[in-house]
Formats: sequence, structure tokens, C-alpha cells
Amino acid sequence: MKPEHKDEMKARARNVCLKLAYDGTAYHGFQRQTPPVIAVQNVLEKKLEIVFGDSIELAASGRTDAGVHALGQVVNFFTDGRIPVDRIPRAVNSLLPQDIAILEAWEADREFSARHSAKSKTYLYRIQQGEVPNPLTARYAWYIRRPLEIERMQQALDLILGEHDFSAFRAAGGAPMSPVRTIYRALVEETEGNQLLCTLHGNGFLYHMVRNIMGTLVHVGTGKLSVKDFKSIMDSRNRNNASATAPAHGLYLSHVEY
Amino acid sequence: MKPEHKDEMKARARNVCLKLAYDGTAYHGFQRQTPPVIAVQNVLEKKLEIVFGDSIELAASGRTDAGVHALGQVVNFFTDGRIPVDRIPRAVNSLLPQDIAILEAWEADREFSARHSAKSKTYLYRIQQGEVPNPLTARYAWYIRRPLEIERMQQALDLILGEHDFSAFRAAGGAPMSPVRTIYRALVEETEGNQLLCTLHGNGFLYHMVRNIMGTLVHVGTGKLSVKDFKSIMDSRNRNNASATAPAHGLYLSHVEY
Repeated sequence: MKPEHKDEMKARARNVCLKLAYDGTAYHGFQRQTPPVIAVQNVLEKKLEIVFGDSIELAASGRTDAGVHALGQVVNFFTDGRIPVDRIPRAVNSLLPQDIAILEAWEADREFSARHSAKSKTYLYRIQQGEVPNPLTARYAWYIRRPLEIERMQQALDLILGEHDFSAFRAAGGAPMSPVRTIYRALVEETEGNQLLCTLHGNGFLYHMVRNIMGTLVHVGTGKLSVKDFKSIMDSRNRNNASATAPAHGLYLSHVEY
Repeated sequence: MKPEHKDEMKARARNVCLKLAYDGTAYHGFQRQTPPVIAVQNVLEKKLEIVFGDSIELAASGRTDAGVHALGQVVNFFTDGRIPVDRIPRAVNSLLPQDIAILEAWEADREFSARHSAKSKTYLYRIQQGEVPNPLTARYAWYIRRPLEIERMQQALDLILGEHDFSAFRAAGGAPMSPVRTIYRALVEETEGNQLLCTLHGNGFLYHMVRNIMGTLVHVGTGKLSVKDFKSIMDSRNRNNASATAPAHGLYLSHVEY
């Protein structure tokens, strides 16, 4: 299809936005894959096409990795399908598997892009503590047996607030975009069931950035690294100095702010 | 093996008890099945045999159905294996899949039986409310969209306290044992994340009894049945009058008291 034609179609079509939650365990991330590898996008587009009677190509606020969960992923797509937006969640949820759900649907201006209009994102990371692992949180939290000292972890998180070069926490071999990001909020708190919950809110995140921060942060929690070490690692801008990437299954894309 | 020989062996062996948690989603219940059907017992016995270097045949406080979870199932077995009890959880957990864990291990008198010494049991049942289903609790709570009125449900639960004939809530075709059980505690409360949590504590439960009570109770919650209807159903002692069995995945064997 010629670009002009696509733009013309887009001009007529509605720009539909969805807020999604999913359990990422069974999927190879959000972004569409070639079957038999299945991503959330594959499943969601297929069900949307049934409901809209239209070919659907959706764009997300960002990809999430294999095993990463979402509580508030946002996507948008252009469609000529006429179903009222308030009917979309129930209609599509009735077709979706139980590990994916549409929480909300709304119509946006033609200019709105789930990806490019995003101003900031909030990620959560869940850690399960305890003498023995908890089978009922095994898919949803990183189990760490050694007790973590939350005050020291918070001191390290205070260091990432504001604008920094996060090269030390960027995935090796990532795309050559600017490694500078601004973090607005970075908190760790104890929650029910002997868990720790980290909240990171920033204007954007590099590939694997949250998981690399978490991987290093838990060593601050156990005492293997000091808060000063954490700062040196960050200041070095060298991925080789940071610890191993924390597992995907503790990570949640919580909110996208526009 | 002759019974006398078995008793002799038992006299020498230690009586080891375990407290277990498991996510029942992947298993065909607790009780050992013939492969390729796999129950929790199949997996646990196999791993215990590796650690104890001994053939293990364990007895549980009771079976749990396919898909039912446990936070505190208790089992015991006789073994000549010499591993100290305090080392058992870590040794066996390192071999177990992440959906089964040993929480505690201890040695009991020769007379102790996880099944026959049980004085009472506590079950939990979790219900997820909300306009749309929650993919992160889909394995662990029964999703009911219609808002449930908790006060009415509690009034119905008050009726099951004490000693009653629970034939109305017993699985059709169950074993011909006495249908009389005593309930000590029956509570419903709202919990975090728009959930309801029911707690049932009693001296014993008939097959499917908790799930049949829950199936009927949610109709009291929606208003389809009155509290008086609930009482009539219970008093009728006729399973045909009660509602459909609630799904297994909301149910947890929480505690066994000895």
C-alpha cells in the first residue's frame, strides 16, 4: 500500500486506544513474533480483527520482554470498525485467553500515538523474600532468600533520581540512542506476604534498564555492594561493572502517562 | 511385603512430617496418579526418594482436587534416610519445580498420621471482582463480574456455623460416610485488589463441600438467592437444590490443625 493511501485511510478511521493487563509468563514479550513463537500482540490483534472485522495493526507504548507482566500497557490502532468504544473491553475479553485483558478503551485524536505521545512510564519490580520459596508467587516475583536491607536499597535508589547517563544499566549491544534518562520517583517498600516492591517512574527507560538496576540493587540489599559501589557503577557508564540482569518475571509495566 | 514386615520397618524408621505449599494449576490434584497424569504426590515422592535414598510413600492430611492450591498441606512418611529434618526443606526444594515447596519439616511420634491425627482444617476461597477480569489473578481467584454483597454472604455463612448435615453441599456420588460436620469459623472479608476472601474452618469437609458452599454463596451475594433460600437449601440435605460447584482455582487448603 502506498504511504499516501495509508494516510488517507488513517484520516477516515478512528484512533482507538486500549489499556491492557497481561501475565507475560506464556508469551515471548509484547511485540509481534513469527509463529510458532507467540507474543501478546499476535493474540490481541487476532481477537481485535474478529471483533472489528478489519485488519488491525497496533502500536504499543513500548515492547515488554518475554515473561514481563503489564498492569497498564497502552496500545492504539486505526480502524474503520464501528463497535462503540465502551463495548470493546467486554467483547474482546470474552475472546481473549485469561492471561490477557483489556481494562479500558477510548478514542483519541488522530495525532495520538501510544508510543510517541508517552511522557513517562512507571515500572514495578517485585521481590519475594523468605526462608523457602513461595510457589504461589513464583511466576510474579523474584525469589531471594537472603534478607535484603531496605534502607540501603532506598539510599541507592535515591542516587538514580533526576537526569543521568544510564549506560551502566543498559543492555549490552542495545540500539545507539542517547543513554540519558530522567527518573522522577524510585522507591522500595515492604509489602504483604514478605515481599519488596520497587517503583520506578521516569521519562523513559533503556532496554533492560529496570532489570539491570534491580540486579545491582539486590547486591546493595544483601551488603555485597555498598551504596558507594552502586554510585561508582552508575558513574562508570560501563555495563560490565553492573551485576547480572534481574529475571523478567518480577517486572511489571504499571502505567504509561501521556 | 508382608504387613508384619512393614510394621517392623516402621518401628525402626523415623516418622517425618512436611508442611507444603503448592500452586495446583499444573497438577491433577494431590493424590498420586498413573503417569502421564501427574499429581503433586508423584513429583514430591520422586524428589524425596532422591534425597532420602529410600522408597517413599507419603500420606497427606487429605487429597486436594485438580487445580486446588495449598498453603499448608501436611504429609508424613516413614523413612530410614538419615538426613537431619532441618536440612530437608532446602535439599528437596532445590530439586522441586517452582510450583511446589516444602515450608517446614519435623519428626513426629510413630503414632502421628497426617491424615488420621488431623483435628480440623482451614480452607480459603478467593473471589476476584471488577468490571474486567484480572490476568494476574486468573489462576488464583474465581472472577465474578457482578458485585457481591458481602453482608448478605456473611449472614448465610453464619448459618453453617456449628454441627450440621451438609448433604446439600456434598458432591453427588460421594463416598457413603456421615454427612455431619462442625464448622468453627466462616468468614467473608474484602481484601486488597478488589477481592473477597472466604475462610472456612471446620473439623472436616465432605468432598467438594467448600466449592459447593461457595457456588451457592455467590448467588446470595448477587441477590439471586436470599439468605433464607440458602438456609432452605442447606436444610433440604439435597445436593440438587444447591448451585453449581465453584471452580477449583479459587480454593486453598490453608492449615491443618493437629
